[in-house]
Order: sequence, then C-alpha cells, then structure tokens
Amino acid sequence: MAILFSNATVLPMTASGDEPRTFTGAVGIDGDRIALVTASETDAAAFRAAHPGLRVIDCRGKLLMPGLVNTHCHAAMTLQRSYADDISLMAWLHDYIWPFEAHQTPDDVALGMTLGIVEMLLGGVTSFVDMYYFENRCVEVAERLGIRALLGCNYFDTNIDEVLPQAEEAVRLAAAGSGRVRIAVAPHSPYTVSPENLVRGKELADKHGLHLMTHISETQDEVRIVREKYGRTSVEHLDRLGLLGPKTIGAHCVHVTDSDIATLAARGVTVSHNPQSNMKISSGVAPVEKLRAAGALVTIGTDGTCSNNDLDMFEELRTAAFLQKSATGDPVALPAYEALRLATANGARAMGCADGGLGVIREGALADVIVVDLQKPHLQPVHNVVSNVVYCGKASDVETVVVGGRIVVENRRIEGVDLPELYRGVAGAVARIKAAQ
Amino acid sequence: MAILFSNATVLPMTASGDEPRTFTGAVGIDGDRIALVTASETDAAAFRAAHPGLRVIDCRGKLLMPGLVNTHCHAAMTLQRSYADDISLMAWLHDYIWPFEAHQTPDDVALGMTLGIVEMLLGGVTSFVDMYYFENRCVEVAERLGIRALLGCNYFDTNIDEVLPQAEEAVRLAAAGSGRVRIAVAPHSPYTVSPENLVRGKELADKHGLHLMTHISETQDEVRIVREKYGRTSVEHLDRLGLLGPKTIGAHCVHVTDSDIATLAARGVTVSHNPQSNMKISSGVAPVEKLRAAGALVTIGTDGTCSNNDLDMFEELRTAAFLQKSATGDPVALPAYEALRLATANGARAMGCADGGLGVIREGALADVIVVDLQKPHLQPVHNVVSNVVYCGKASDVETVVVGGRIVVENRRIEGVDLPELYRGVAGAVARIKAAQ
Repeated sequence: MAILFSNATVLPMTASGDEPRTFTGAVGIDGDRIALVTASETDAAAFRAAHPGLRVIDCRGKLLMPGLVNTHCHAAMTLQRSYADDISLMAWLHDYIWPFEAHQTPDDVALGMTLGIVEMLLGGVTSFVDMYYFENRCVEVAERLGIRALLGCNYFDTNIDEVLPQAEEAVRLAAAGSGRVRIAVAPHSPYTVSPENLVRGKELADKHGLHLMTHISETQDEVRIVREKYGRTSVEHLDRLGLLGPKTIGAHCVHVTDSDIATLAARGVTVSHNPQSNMKISSGVAPVEKLRAAGALVTIGTDGTCSNNDLDMFEELRTAAFLQKSATGDPVALPAYEALRLATANGARAMGCADGGLGVIREGALADVIVVDLQKPHLQPVHNVVSNVVYCGKASDVETVVVGGRIVVENRRIEGVDLPELYRGVAGAVARIKAAQ
Repeated sequence: MAILFSNATVLPMTASGDEPRTFTGAVGIDGDRIALVTASETDAAAFRAAHPGLRVIDCRGKLLMPGLVNTHCHAAMTLQRSYADDISLMAWLHDYIWPFEAHQTPDDVALGMTLGIVEMLLGGVTSFVDMYYFENRCVEVAERLGIRALLGCNYFDTNIDEVLPQAEEAVRLAAAGSGRVRIAVAPHSPYTVSPENLVRGKELADKHGLHLMTHISETQDEVRIVREKYGRTSVEHLDRLGLLGPKTIGAHCVHVTDSDIATLAARGVTVSHNPQSNMKISSGVAPVEKLRAAGALVTIGTDGTCSNNDLDMFEELRTAAFLQKSATGDPVALPAYEALRLATANGARAMGCADGGLGVIREGALADVIVVDLQKPHLQPVHNVVSNVVYCGKASDVETVVVGGRIVVENRRIEGVDLPELYRGVAGAVARIKAAQ
C-alpha cells in the first residue's frame, strides 16, 4: 500500500556533508521505498492521483524524519532490566546475570526480545543490531513485529560449537523471510574468545557474507587482559587476526589509542558508541570526537537493559552529545545535527546499507521513517527543530513508525501486540527463572 | 476535597536513612495534607467512610511517589529553548541570549513561565526553584497553575535598584496567595555582583525571612575572576560576606575545593546539582559524592532551557547518577535510591520544608504526589521499582499530579490550560522579540 505523509516538517538528514534545511512538504511511500520527497503541493497531488487508495497521514505540526538505528544492544535482556544495579561488575555478572541466563530457555529469550523490540519501535527505533543467544529463535520475532534487524549470534569459547550451527540455521531462516532480518556472527570479545575461535567466527561470516560484531576495548580491564595475553591492544589483536573490516561492528571502543583509532578508520569498522552504559558501568568515555576526526564510522547504541536500563535512542544520542562536550571541555563538540546523524544515516551504513539507501529521507531509500509530534510543551517554541529533537525529544513523542513501508506503530499503538498479555508473560518467565536459581 | 489513591505501589521515600520498602496500599489526602498512608484495606475503607464524596483514584499497576523538586531553573527561558546551541559561551550570551532578553516584556516572561510550569507539571515536578527577571509578574502564573514555587528575583549590579523593589512587591503578592508560592532574593553570582550588592540582597532576604540563591563556582572562569578580584574562592568570598546559611541555595558548585565543600556542609547551604547543563556547556563535573560524604544538602536542578534544553527532572536525576559513576570510576556511586532522594526529599528541604513535611509520602506531609504508570514496555518487568523509575522512568510516564491536595494533572491533561493557544502565544512573542532585535 502506498502512503503519503502530507504537510510535514521534513528533516531529511544526510549521510555526509552539511546540514540540509528542513522544509514543509510531503513524503510518499510506495512498497518498501520512499517514492516522493517534495515541497510542492502539485507533486504531492500527482502522487495521490497516481496511487488510488493510498493512505494519507496529515503531519501538520509534526516532524517526519528517518527512524533511529540502535547499533548495539542485547534486546532480550529486557527480562533482566533493573535486576542488579549499583553493584560492582564482578558481583553483577557472577551473582546475578550469569545465574539468571543459565535458566533462560529459547522461548524466554524470544519473549525478552519481543519486549525489547516493542520498546524500541514505540521509541522510534526502526533498525537495531543485536548480540545475544538463541538469535535463531528471534528471527521470527523480528519478522513478525516488522523491525529491521541485524541479529548477532553471540559466542564464547565455551559454547561456540552450539552457537555457530545456530547461526547457520538463523541464516537459513532469515533468507526465507522479508529481507529485513539478517544474521551476524558475534564473538563476545577479544578477551573472552581465543584467537582460534575468533577466526572460526570470521570464516563463518565470510562464508555467508555476514557481518561480524564484537565488544572492543570496553573497559581498562579488557585492555589489560588482552595486553597481558597477546602483547597488543584489542584493536591490534583483532586486526592481526583479520577481523576488522567494513562489515565489522565494534561495540564501545572506549580505551583505544591514537593508533587504534587510525586502524578502526582505515579498516572501515563501525564503532558503536554506548554512552549511557559506559557512564553507568564506569567504563570510561569513548573518544568520539577523535574517532570522527579520524574518519571512523561512529554510530550510537543503547547496550542492554542491564546497563542502561532502557532502549531509548533519543536519550542515548542526547547523552552522546552531552558527554563529548563534558569530556572534551568544548561546548561545540558533537553538535546536535552530528549526534542525530550518528543515530540515523551512520547507523544505516553500519547495517550495511550504502549511502542514501537507509537512514535518510530521499527518493529511492528504504522507507524507514518516524513521525514526531512537535506539539508538546517541551518541544515548543521551535527556534531550531534539530536542536529541539536532539536536546529535548523523547521516545514518547514518536507517534507513527514505518519500517520498509509498513506502518508498525500508529498513534503510539503497536500493531499486533497485546501489551498486558506481553507483560504477564514476561512476569511469569522472570518468576520461573528466579525460582529455578 | 479528599482523595484516596487505592491499590497503588507506594514508594514513600525518606529524608534520611535506609531505603524503605515499597508496599501495595492506599494513600489518602485531606485538604492540602496526606492524611493516610496504609497497606491495610480496613484503614482505606475507614478513610472512605469518614470522607463522603471523596475522589477515589485506582492505581492498580501504578506507582505513587512524591513529586519531584527542581531546585534550579530559569523557567521563563523556555522562550529561548534551542535558540542558540553548540556555540561558545560568550557568543551565546552576547549574540543571542542578552539581545533576546533585552526585548522581553514582563508579559513575555509570564508566558515563558507558563510554558515552563506546564512542562514541569506534566513531567511530575511539583515544586521548583526559579531565578529570573519579573518574578513579581510570575507569582500569579504559579498560583494559577497550582505548582509549588520559590521564585528568586535575579539581579546584577546594573539592575539591583529595579529588582529589589520588585522583590518586595512579589513578597506582598505571594503573601496574599495560597502559601504555595514564596519569594527569594537572587544575586546572579559572586563574579557579576559586587560585595556591597550581594550584602544588600542578603539584608533584604533577612528582613523578610526569605531564601537567598545564587550561582556558585559554575565555571573555571568564574573561580578565576573571583580569585583575581577578591583573592578567595567563590565559597570563601560569599561566606565572608555572610551569604551562606541554611536558607541559601547555591546552583552548580562545580569547581569547589575540599575546604569549600566543608564550608557548604557546615553552613547548611543547599547545593543544586545541574548535571545536564554542566555537561552541555562543558562546565565540569560537580563533586556530588564528596559533597554528600561531607553532609552537604545536595539536590537536583535542570537549569534553564537554553542549557539543557528541557525541564525534565527524570532525565536530570538519571544523568546525575550516570555522571557520578562515570566521573568517579565507581559504578556504585550515587545509587538509584540516593539519586531519587536528591530530587524529592532533599529538594523539599531546600524549599524550606522541614524533614518529613514535603518530598515524602507520610501522614501529615504536604500532599505533593505523582502517579507513574508502570504499564509501559520500558518499565517492565519490575525487578526493582526504584531502579526502573530512576534508570528508565520518563516524564511522559507521569499520569496524575497533585500539589497541595489539588489535582493539577490528570491522565496527562493539565487543568486550565489550552495548549495550542499557549503554543501560538509563545510563537507570537518569540517572533516579535526576534523581529525587534
């Protein structure tokens, strides 16, 4: 079905170059693509005439912009949201997270994934990159809910022989689907996976043309361990093993040297910056401005709901801007438009979509767009709509969400999900898992 | 009218000591006070029987907690929200803020104040401390909208002779009102107001028993200027002039020495910590954990919408927790409950309400409470309701707001305000002011 968003304030975003001007106009969608972007009422009328039965959504007083792209999360960990906060990392893992995960079934993970995707869609996230267990079970969840996803099958040395076959099964399942869901191989990190097993993952990724993702230089402890074991930084270690390339997504990249930064940029690695997680777990501050200056592809991720504790990309991209200004001492660092670019056009490149094919509003791009209601006290007046969205926009201001031309959220209602039933299911699973420990 | 909130998850908060357990129960309000806090259905039934015609609000699946207290803002600056971002401080002041303010009338300020209060009430802020011009004009606004306010009449050396008489007028206006609105004297800062004029403000405050508020050690530049002029830190300078005491609110306190911290604690000064503003303007990181350890009264403020850019206390208290964890390198720093205490019970003490009289849910306390809807994807499951509220709660989750026993927001609708008309008025004022420059 074709859709016409009329009378909208359109924020097109760009993959590179200057900030484009917003304009009042119409955006038409045909199939899974944006077919019209215009300020002309005549063009909009012609689009209507050419698409009988099209759906018209009046966006007067509303902003139409690309959907947000969350490039690192563990969406199914919604089951553990706020399960263990304000404690040290080791106590957190040993006493809470791992015992909980030991009792999770694939169905539990699918339930947690459902809750996570629902939260993201309602908050204007149209694409996400995930990294967790049982992603083969989650292909169906992402397909059903309509989000665009890159699902990374996470493994350690201890479970690689279970996970790699699951990844291959997931590849088959995804290939039979809409094309919106794709699979990636996700060794946990250079300090928890042996060089041999890192390479095994890379070989599987290459065999199927998949992305590879891993945590890179998240904490000082990681960097110390990798240096003690291999005599190199995490980036040097991964690069030497051939794991870094334009289909690699590195989460965090907090403790990276200038040389590491140059390597990440030269290899075309996607950096997923997760500022709220880095702050909450006291990991440090990623050198985003240095990475950007070096030409690295910087994007934004929320990380999991154990360390954030939500999947709110509006807060995340705002925190990214605030944190760079604070850490660099420069109030001009990571300005509003650039922060938003990290979370839209750059995130789309991380998902493997060439410039202009996603994360922007342009004719021919995939139709992943959101409508933000500007008629809220915290978004008035409108001196600068980009500043308002970046510094004041809330997940709850998102009214309508379209992914690949399909309306998945309208008037803040998510299609095909009974929320009270979902909450009951989640509560039941959580109670069972906690009782089993 | 009496109100009974039934079947609520109640988070009472405490002014000091350990975290109390939440419980399921009822809270009754009679007049402007909390008259019943109980887990007993029998007690709730007795309250109903004793108050014929009372309003019953069913809070099943919802959280009842104290309203948030914003201890530093410039609410009328909503008119300049996102007017000038991502530029240096001096360009910001000279090229944007001051020329804009030069053309603001008292009615413009009242309009900006209206928008700011509406935003705060909808976000669960029941009390705020303000600092701006024409506060005499704003007494009526705060009275009408029903929020609890401490309005600080801001002056520089250049306008003290206009502002102090306005402050006295504001005191008379407030005295004729409900008692919810009170006036304070607000010299801008120790670097922009002479010692003589700081003392004149203090004398006026003492004469009427008012609070005094000022910016303290916000930036390194301020500290340098004060040291060059007076050979002391800002705190030493203010203390020597007799300005520091339990009725003093100091905004920011970023660049304070250990000795300054001891002085702030010893004098009982309220510190208003404004983390998002400090980050966005690159002011530095306030030593909140040191201030708390020294026994200082730390509270949370949003600062104005030129430097935040909203008045969202949920985000602000969350950022406070994240920033302390990040800056101290300790993930246990400023845990969730303590962050929430800064924004409720501590803020209430800053407003001049003795322990237990405000900012907590206790029989006899002023009835400033909010209802938070927990049936949202980002607030499920509920392992720990405090963590969920602090790390995931949004202004938009606030459903109902009561100030002094009066329902001012219900089902996210604010009483007595036509929002579209307000936005049109604001847009008109802004257009006129910009055209006049």
